[in-house]
Parts: sequence; C-alpha cells; structure tokens
Amino acid sequence: MIIVMKPASTAKQLSAVVARVESVGYRTSLIKGEETTIIGVIGDDRPIDRTQFETLDGVEKTLPVLKPFKLASRDMHPMDTLVPLNGHKVGASKVVFIAGPCSVEGRTQILETAHAVKEAGATALRGGAFKPRTSPYSFQGLGEEGLQYLAEAREATGLPVVTEAMSPEQVPLVAKYADVIQIGARNMQNYDLLRAVGKVNKTVLLKRGMMSTIEELLMSAEYVLAGGNTQVMVCERGIRTFEKYTRNTTDINAVPVLKQLTHLPVILDPSHSTGKWEYVTAVARAGIAAGADGLIVEVHQNPSEALSDGAQSLKPEKFAQMVSECRSIALAMGRS
Amino acid sequence: MIIVMKPASTAKQLSAVVARVESVGYRTSLIKGEETTIIGVIGDDRPIDRTQFETLDGVEKTLPVLKPFKLASRDMHPMDTLVPLNGHKVGASKVVFIAGPCSVEGRTQILETAHAVKEAGATALRGGAFKPRTSPYSFQGLGEEGLQYLAEAREATGLPVVTEAMSPEQVPLVAKYADVIQIGARNMQNYDLLRAVGKVNKTVLLKRGMMSTIEELLMSAEYVLAGGNTQVMVCERGIRTFEKYTRNTTDINAVPVLKQLTHLPVILDPSHSTGKWEYVTAVARAGIAAGADGLIVEVHQNPSEALSDGAQSLKPEKFAQMVSECRSIALAMGRS
Amino acid sequence: MIIVMKPASTAKQLSAVVARVESVGYRTSLIKGEETTIIGVIGDDRPIDRTQFETLDGVEKTLPVLKPFKLASRDMHPMDTLVPLNGHKVGASKVVFIAGPCSVEGRTQILETAHAVKEAGATALRGGAFKPRTSPYSFQGLGEEGLQYLAEAREATGLPVVTEAMSPEQVPLVAKYADVIQIGARNMQNYDLLRAVGKVNKTVLLKRGMMSTIEELLMSAEYVLAGGNTQVMVCERGIRTFEKYTRNTTDINAVPVLKQLTHLPVILDPSHSTGKWEYVTAVARAGIAAGADGLIVEVHQNPSEALSDGAQSLKPEKFAQMVSECRSIALAMGRS
Amino acid sequence: MIIVMKPASTAKQLSAVVARVESVGYRTSLIKGEETTIIGVIGDDRPIDRTQFETLDGVEKTLPVLKPFKLASRDMHPMDTLVPLNGHKVGASKVVFIAGPCSVEGRTQILETAHAVKEAGATALRGGAFKPRTSPYSFQGLGEEGLQYLAEAREATGLPVVTEAMSPEQVPLVAKYADVIQIGARNMQNYDLLRAVGKVNKTVLLKRGMMSTIEELLMSAEYVLAGGNTQVMVCERGIRTFEKYTRNTTDINAVPVLKQLTHLPVILDPSHSTGKWEYVTAVARAGIAAGADGLIVEVHQNPSEALSDGAQSLKPEKFAQMVSECRSIALAMGRS
Repeated sequence: MIIVMKPASTAKQLSAVVARVESVGYRTSLIKGEETTIIGVIGDDRPIDRTQFETLDGVEKTLPVLKPFKLASRDMHPMDTLVPLNGHKVGASKVVFIAGPCSVEGRTQILETAHAVKEAGATALRGGAFKPRTSPYSFQGLGEEGLQYLAEAREATGLPVVTEAMSPEQVPLVAKYADVIQIGARNMQNYDLLRAVGKVNKTVLLKRGMMSTIEELLMSAEYVLAGGNTQVMVCERGIRTFEKYTRNTTDINAVPVLKQLTHLPVILDPSHSTGKWEYVTAVARAGIAAGADGLIVEVHQNPSEALSDGAQSLKPEKFAQMVSECRSIALAMGRS
Repeated sequence: MIIVMKPASTAKQLSAVVARVESVGYRTSLIKGEETTIIGVIGDDRPIDRTQFETLDGVEKTLPVLKPFKLASRDMHPMDTLVPLNGHKVGASKVVFIAGPCSVEGRTQILETAHAVKEAGATALRGGAFKPRTSPYSFQGLGEEGLQYLAEAREATGLPVVTEAMSPEQVPLVAKYADVIQIGARNMQNYDLLRAVGKVNKTVLLKRGMMSTIEELLMSAEYVLAGGNTQVMVCERGIRTFEKYTRNTTDINAVPVLKQLTHLPVILDPSHSTGKWEYVTAVARAGIAAGADGLIVEVHQNPSEALSDGAQSLKPEKFAQMVSECRSIALAMGRS
Repeated sequence: MIIVMKPASTAKQLSAVVARVESVGYRTSLIKGEETTIIGVIGDDRPIDRTQFETLDGVEKTLPVLKPFKLASRDMHPMDTLVPLNGHKVGASKVVFIAGPCSVEGRTQILETAHAVKEAGATALRGGAFKPRTSPYSFQGLGEEGLQYLAEAREATGLPVVTEAMSPEQVPLVAKYADVIQIGARNMQNYDLLRAVGKVNKTVLLKRGMMSTIEELLMSAEYVLAGGNTQVMVCERGIRTFEKYTRNTTDINAVPVLKQLTHLPVILDPSHSTGKWEYVTAVARAGIAAGADGLIVEVHQNPSEALSDGAQSLKPEKFAQMVSECRSIALAMGRS
Repeated sequence: MIIVMKPASTAKQLSAVVARVESVGYRTSLIKGEETTIIGVIGDDRPIDRTQFETLDGVEKTLPVLKPFKLASRDMHPMDTLVPLNGHKVGASKVVFIAGPCSVEGRTQILETAHAVKEAGATALRGGAFKPRTSPYSFQGLGEEGLQYLAEAREATGLPVVTEAMSPEQVPLVAKYADVIQIGARNMQNYDLLRAVGKVNKTVLLKRGMMSTIEELLMSAEYVLAGGNTQVMVCERGIRTFEKYTRNTTDINAVPVLKQLTHLPVILDPSHSTGKWEYVTAVARAGIAAGADGLIVEVHQNPSEALSDGAQSLKPEKFAQMVSECRSIALAMGRS
C-alpha cells in the first residue's frame, strides 16, 4: 500500500500516519516529492482495509500495490491448473463445450437435449434445476426432480452434469447429482455459498457477476480455493453496461486478462453475454480466438417454448454448426 | 406486450406468431404501419418470458407494456405504506435516521456507539454481525455474539436494531435479535433469502444492488411482498458506474422515481453511496431534499481503527451535525 | 508517479526502468517490499504519459500521485472563484437559476418564456440556437436568427443570455450575442473548442460529458483556464449508466466532490440529469442541498409542442414552484 | 411509435392524446388491454421527438417501433457496401489491417514505421497529426507538418493514409493529404464535423464514442450518409464501463450486431479497446473471429518512448505476429 499525503499536510500529520501504520505491524518508507510526500507501507497488507487510513488527518488517498488475491494468482502458481472433465483436461490444449437448456423443464426435454448436444460435440451437459429469476411470477425450476432427470441424462449419454446451487444448504443435494457445481452470476458474492463449495470435492464453475470486476471474480475464486477446493473454472458471462442492444456486454478483454492473472481455466458463456441467439456463434468463435479454454452455451430443442432464456438458446443444429466453427478456430490457433 | 415484426416479414410469419401467442392464452390485436406491423398482446403476460417470442421467424423485437411488478406498485396500491419504527411511522412526515457502525466489533464499541447515535438523534441502531466481504482474508463479523451485543445495546438505549441476514438459514437467528432485517446489496437477488424474509414477521430493509435497476429492486421487493410480508423499506445505496472518485454513484434520481412507482418507504444510504465520509453529509441533505423518508448512515467512534468501512464512517459529532442539517432541510420542506 | 515492479522482475530490469525514468529528467526513490519493489518518481510528471513506462520489461503497473489538473485545483487556488452574473456572484452565498427552453424556436416563444422565467425568479435566460441532435432528421436550431431573438429577449427582460457554441468557428458569433457561452456535454472534450473559448472574454459554462469522469471535466476546465479565461462554471448534467428509468443518472456526489477539488462554481442541470419533468424539482432541491451554486433548468410554455427536450421541460408555473422550494432549502442551509 | 396510457388515465385524456398525434399528421390505432390502452402511431415518425408526448396528461411512456436510422440500415440497403482501400474492398472476403503510430512524432519515425508495418502485412497506414488529448499539458500533434510526413510515407510505401480531422475547418486540409479521414471517438457526435465529412469525396472511418450506443453510432453514420458520402466504415474501439483492469471494454458483441444492422464495413480497434499491448493480439483475433472486416492497430518502434498511447502500441515484430495469427483465423472462417 502507498499512502499519499495532501500537499498542504503537516510534518506532525505525517508522523501520526507513520505511527498509526507501524502500530498495526507494518514498516514504512517515505518518499518526499516536490508537491507531496508518499508513505510506502511494507508487509502483506491484504487483510487490512487500506481505506481506513484515508480518514487520518493529512491523508489524500491510498493506492494498493499488491494484488488482493494470492491462491488464484499466477504470481504464486505459475503453472496452469488443469481441471478434468469427461476425460479431457480443461485448461490444456483441447477446448470444451458445455451445452444444454437454461432450465430442466421435464424428463423428455432434458434427455432429448442431452442426446442432441452430445451428438453435436458437447463435452458436458448443463441445465438448471434451481433457477434464480428476477420475477416471483416466473418458472422457478423443478428442484430435486430436475436433478434426477439430469442424472438420468448422464446415465444415458455419458455426459457429466453442470448445474447450479443457489444457497449453502443446497450444496450437499446438488453435489449428490452434479459433476460440476455452478455458482451463478447473481451469487458470485454469496460468500456463505462460496465457503460451502470450497469444502466439497466437486469442480466449481464460478460465473462472473454482471456487476463485478475481474478482480472481484478472482477474489471470489479465492474464497473457494481458500476452502481447500482447487478445482475451479472461472467464467465470463457478460457485464452490464449502458449498451442495450444486447442483454449484456461480452467483456472479451477478460479472457486474455484472466489467462494472464490466474492459473485457473477460463470459460466463456456467449448465451448470457449476448442474450440473443443470433449473436451467440460469432461471440463463441471470438471467445475461442481470444484464448478461452471452453464455452458454456444454452441449447433448446424449441426456443420459442422455453420456460426461460428462449431468446438466447440455440437449436441443436445451430449448436452443431457453432461447435464446428469453433473447432476450426481452435485448430487455426494450434489447439484442438 | 407488443411484438414488432420485421419490415421484410411475411403474412405467413405474422399468422404463425399470432397463432403462437393465442395458443398460450392471450388475445391479439394488429396494427399495420407503413414499414412494419405490430401485434398487441392482450392479457396479463407478466408470468411469461416475452423474449421467447423474439425467436419466432419474422419477429424483430418485443416491447413490454405492463410494469413487471404488481404488489409493489402504486398502480395497485396508491396509498403510502407506513412502516412502524421506534414509535414513528416511516413513510409519513417525519424522517428517520438509522445509524451505527458497519460491523459490530465488540461489546463496548456497540454500546458506546448506540448511546452516541441516540444522543445525536438516531431513530434506530444499525450494525452488522454477519459481513459479506470481498476478501476471504478480511474480518467476517462476530456472528451470533454480535447479535447479542446488538440486543444488549437495544436494552440500554431503546433503539431498535437493524442488522443483515446473508442466507435463508440465518433468517430465524437474525429474526430472534433484530427489529429490522437488512438484505444487503449483494443479496438483492438472492431469491431464496427474499422468500425466507417474506415469511417472517419482521420489517425488511431491502438495499438496491450496486448494479441493479430500479425495476429489479422493485421485483425483489415483490418477492418479499408475495411471501406475505408487507413491511418493506427500499434503500438506494449507490450504483456502480465508470466514475471512480467516489466508491459508488448515488442515484439520487431513484428517490423521486421510487416515490412515484411504489408505495413503500424509501431510505437513502449516503455512506455506501459515496464511500467517503467527507461527502456523506452533503449527500444526506440531498436525499432528504429529494424526498427520502429516512437515512441509514455508518457511524464509528474511531473510523481509522474500524475493521470495515472506516473511510465512509462519520464520527458521532459529525453525525449529530448531519442530523441537525437534515432536520433543517426537512422542516424547509414541510416535514419533521 | 509510482512504478510497481512485478514480483518476478529482476535487478537488471529495475535498473533499466530507473535509468529510463532518470533519462527524461526525473529523480527516483526505491522502496523494496516483501513481494515487490516500487519506484517513486519525483518531479512534476503531468506532461508525460505514465502508461508508457508500463511497456518496460518487469513493470507491472504505474499509479498516479499528483492530480492531473493544476489551475482548476483548490490545492493551487484555495479561494472560491466568484463569477459575476446579472449583478450576483455565482459561487458566493446566493444560488442562481438559469432557465429557458432547450431550443430557441421563434421570436414570440423566447420572448414570452424570458418574461415568464424572469417573473418566476430566474437569474439568466438559457436557449439554444445551435443544437447538437442525435438524428440528422431532427430540428437543428435557428442559428444566428436564434441568437438575435435571445439578444432581443435580454433587451426586454434584462436577463443575461446563456447559449451554446458547438465549434471553434462559431465562437466569435456566439460571443457577439451571449453573456455566457455554454460548452455542451457532447463537446466537453472538443479541445479546439475549449481552446477557442479560453481566449474570449466571456464566462464559460462547461457541462460534464455524459460519460466523462469528474477528473476529465476538470481537465477540460484546465484547457479553458490555461487559455487565460478564468471565468468558468462547471456543470453536472447527469451521466450515462445502466439505469434506464431516467434518461441519465444525476451524479449528486459530484457536487460535493467538485466543491472540494476545485474553486470554480458548480451548477446542476436537473433537466438533463433526469430527462423527465416529474423528477426535475426533487433533483433541483437535492442539488441545492448538496451544495450547488446554481441550477440550469429547461422551461417551455408548452412542453408537448417543444421541438426538442419536451419531456424534461417544466412549464413556467412549475418552474416558479421549483424556485420557491429551492430557495427554502437554500435558506435552511444559511444561503440566500 | 407506441404510446402507453396510464392504467388510471381517462377516456378524455386518451382522446386528447389521439387528437394531438393526429394534429401533427399521423394516423392512430388503439388497442385496449385489460390494464391499459396503447395507441399505435402510424407514419414515419423519425423526425419528431417521441418523448414530447410523454408530457401529455394520462401518458405513461412511449416506445419506438422504427429504427431511427434509414440510410445506414440493412432494411433499406440489404447488400454490403464495399469500400475500396489499397486495391482491396473492405467489407468483402479479405480482412484489412490499418496500422501505425498513435501520433506522427517526426519524419523518420513515420517513415520507418510505414515500412515496418507494410512489411508485416498492413493494408494502410494510420497516424495522427491532430491529437485530442485529455490534458492541455500533453503533446498535441505536429499539425500540417505531420500530414506532410504521412503523405511522404505514402509515397515511399504505397500505403494509403488514415488520419483524423478534429473540426469542420480542418477537413479540407486533412482531405488534401489523407485517403481516409478518421472521426475520433470523442468527436462521434460532433455534428458539424460529421456534416463536413459528409460532403467530401474521401472515405470516412467513424469510431464509436466511448460513451455511445450502437444505435447512436449508426445515427452518426447517418449524418455522413445523408450528406452524400457513402464511403463510411464504422469502428468499434471499446466502451467505458466499471471494469478498470483494461482502459476500455471491447464490445465484441457490437461486431455481429453491426454486421446485422448495417451494410457498412465494420472495423475493430483492439489497441484502444484494451489499452494494453499484452491483450491486443488476443482481442484482434477475437475481432476477426466475430466477423470484423478489418482491424486498426497502433504500432510503434519504441513504445516506451511514444509521445502518446505507448502502453497500447505493439512493436512491429509483434504486429507481424498478430497479422499472421489473424490471417489464420480468417482462413479458418473461409475469408482471406
């Protein structure tokens, strides 16, 4: 941490700030410039709230020096973490495709979709049994019945199951059926939930909140890693901006930024990040080209009858086309 | 809902869309313009996902006509809801002040602060026992011990207690000690939690998510109201924007907008909405001038030693000054 | 400026960075922490692009220490700048009201409106002769004819005229008729225009761009001040965010922030910052309560027939009511 | 346009709104729903400000039906516009690469860079002679001298020149030297400038404002097209969001959205849209994969000594590598 003093601050104020910093166990080093003085704070200051020092007399601002995450950082762990999924290693050369409907709507629907996405090249099956919905009047998911259908679809197709847990107490139930537990965008900062999945022996797919910075995403990953679970994939799924032509704005920059900052595999969700099926394939290709390790995509047999997210769901034949195009891009990049 | 057809759509596509809309129980009415045709969908379409119709051939877009919330709307409930708090009615003429530290840090701290804010004019005491923190390395709150100290502070001062519940399973515990259960910004769309507080007999203070729209805030209020709990206060606490000089951007527009759209009382949190104590008083005054029914403010005896949110906490004497200035504004507006 | 080295950087990289910094005329001072080293750069580094140092091997990031603006800063000029307007001094105790239509639409319209706003308590008359419009198919303003009508309205009422110049070559023409030259939000970073108004002997009302930071607003003011024109008022007029219920989001925080950072008077435009007349009065009151030195408000005799900005224009009687309420707030704050 | 009446509006209010709409030359058609009534407005309503109707008694809101742009729209002009550049047609199969320094800093610099980017595969040379800079203390460009060096570089390499005009009066001068006139992001809504380039016989590269929607970008293109100049390329260069790890957020969605909405060629600028050279190549690949017709990239022989934008400039050898990788992606997509 750096503490910048105000130009008009006094020597006494400076001494008081230094004393305060040292009283909580850090060393200090001063640099006197022409207009102001800065105090370098030496030591691992991640646990403290640096802004508290901004309330001291004479202080203008504080600046962070260290990255706030450690376990998620490449600085501490330079090698890529590889996460097993259906015989592949996510984060290695091969790109993976996780596909399926937004919601499990019924037994036939999920079984048919599972077969369809498998045939089209999917690596794993997604589908929600517990659904976070903006409106209390919307379909809220089938609950455990939906999980059972997902498990049945896995039996039938061999595809591992990716599905969301929405609260700490749901984790044991979801873990019983799922291969990968998804933490949804709205729950990225549900810290009790992050702690809960940090203790289970299941891969976690952590989606970036629509309002969250890349740094906050990695801080949430840090919660899971700090709990002892190292099998974490982080997922860009679009952020909220002023642009309203699409549902969200795909932060494609986040792909190379995350690959640089963290050793965890990076997944892109072009369905949520665009919100309209017409743009999903183009953005899926862009994700692979930017270096994503995989994609998670919504696929529905009949989007105009979907109980949720119909507008952004691909039909199976369009998904097959998308997989084919993404594979061409991957090959052009020397991946597979 | 309105469905706008593409300029180049065909009569057959139009018929198919009409048939689809009518098959799910709505009536339709067409308007043929010079460049395109629109379909008016008649009936309460709130439960369906209108965007699913955007996947039908020939459809360009859909537009919502009805407000998505009902119970929270003034259209359905024109009279102000008045929420009792410490002998006052929030939403009526008198403005209320909820004040206290970000976190309960210890017994002495909360007792002293409670006395100080009471003396300065506070209506209720705030303080967090369970803290959502971006970093797993930060102070996470005292838990039930913190709740016990809050209850003790209520005994000592008579101030009702406002404190946060972070997950559905915490609700019974928090309800045991609190007078008002706060739903924090990060949990505004934690729907299981909203359902849980919808079933308890305690007032709910629902904070707007930092990147949630006003409409989404009211949809979350709708969850609580739909559960049967009518004692809800909504709270503007700043939204996330590109401006970085302050921690958040106070959406002061939200105050008159909310007063127009909903019958629920509207509270402003100038501590979080600015993030720096120097601006809290000015924005508190602005909130009262804009028509807020009350304020929730962070107060700490020694901000530079606060375990959380020190930078945005007022010292008790500054809080007293703030109350005094806000009361002058309220009087100038014919409130008390 | 601070340069933060990467944790894995080498001593040789550090030396090279230091050498590069010193080669362009700065002194350096090092602080070696436990995980990384930082380099303090000493001297006025405002003219250089600090990010260029981020391309040097071993550098992780740079952090600014000095504020980038000087002439606009209170650090250099602690006393309030007072700008004369119609016998008052903007920035002193009395709050001012600038009012009038978005566009000058005709002689009768502007004359009638001028009389109406004067009677309601306005300090100055606003009205656009040159209009920046999103669509080439919209009304673009009356040009010089509009300026002549404004001058005639000044003759008739004694109200000074505030009107916009959109390009450097318009400045002499606008300066011939106007008392205050407005720089619109879309032109806040039109640097040739800023330079042009920096050289005229007229007050400048500089509006914040809808997606410009407070710092960028002050940098644009710096252009005008650096040109020699010290009569500058800065104006918050709402920023663009994800919230779509209002046209823009009033950044009310900007009022106390600007009052702290700069000595220039601060004006709020609640018409543009809300975009809907129903919210203008509430936000106007909030602006005065937050410490603004004045307001600029759109007033139209018949908003539903306005050629531009009808939705956000007050009728004269509502404007009179707004002035009255704002004066009560000002009095409550010890202003006049 | 659709006008939505308030649920509590009266028959008399409805009649008055209908009468007002018809008085300005439109036809109306009503749809009475269960909770409210809507009025369909028939006719080309693009020239009027629909929000003015929101001020009429009983009106809740208005909704646009028609796209506000016409000449830029694929609805009116389904075939791709192909823009000639150095013997290629931008918008056809081959992707183009426009490259060069942010600023022309001197004769040697631009000549050497021109040769280097040509060798690496560039189609055209970029370089700024007039520079919009946030700070008045920063390097502002060489002016006409810079244009002369650019022309000399064209002579030497055969690369056409892309360079920015910042104000209407600069257009003739810039047109004298440039092959393509760039309108920078800060000037996207400088309408006098758009009108000026609408009348010259030079291709225009129109960059999206950092605060502008896709629709506003196309409205600005509409200004140029309406002036008679059909040779327009639109350019995504990143938008401003809350994410601060990168300078801007690349709105990769905008690429397929623009390709769908308009017939004009779409260019991506990964240098500005990321702001850090480490991410430029990944985002350049993503742009091609998303369907962009070309890229504009900043290249500098020695980024750490660049007078502007050093942090986001590629060295020539990295640019050559980028071109090679982008060509592989283009080939994988069946382009060249």
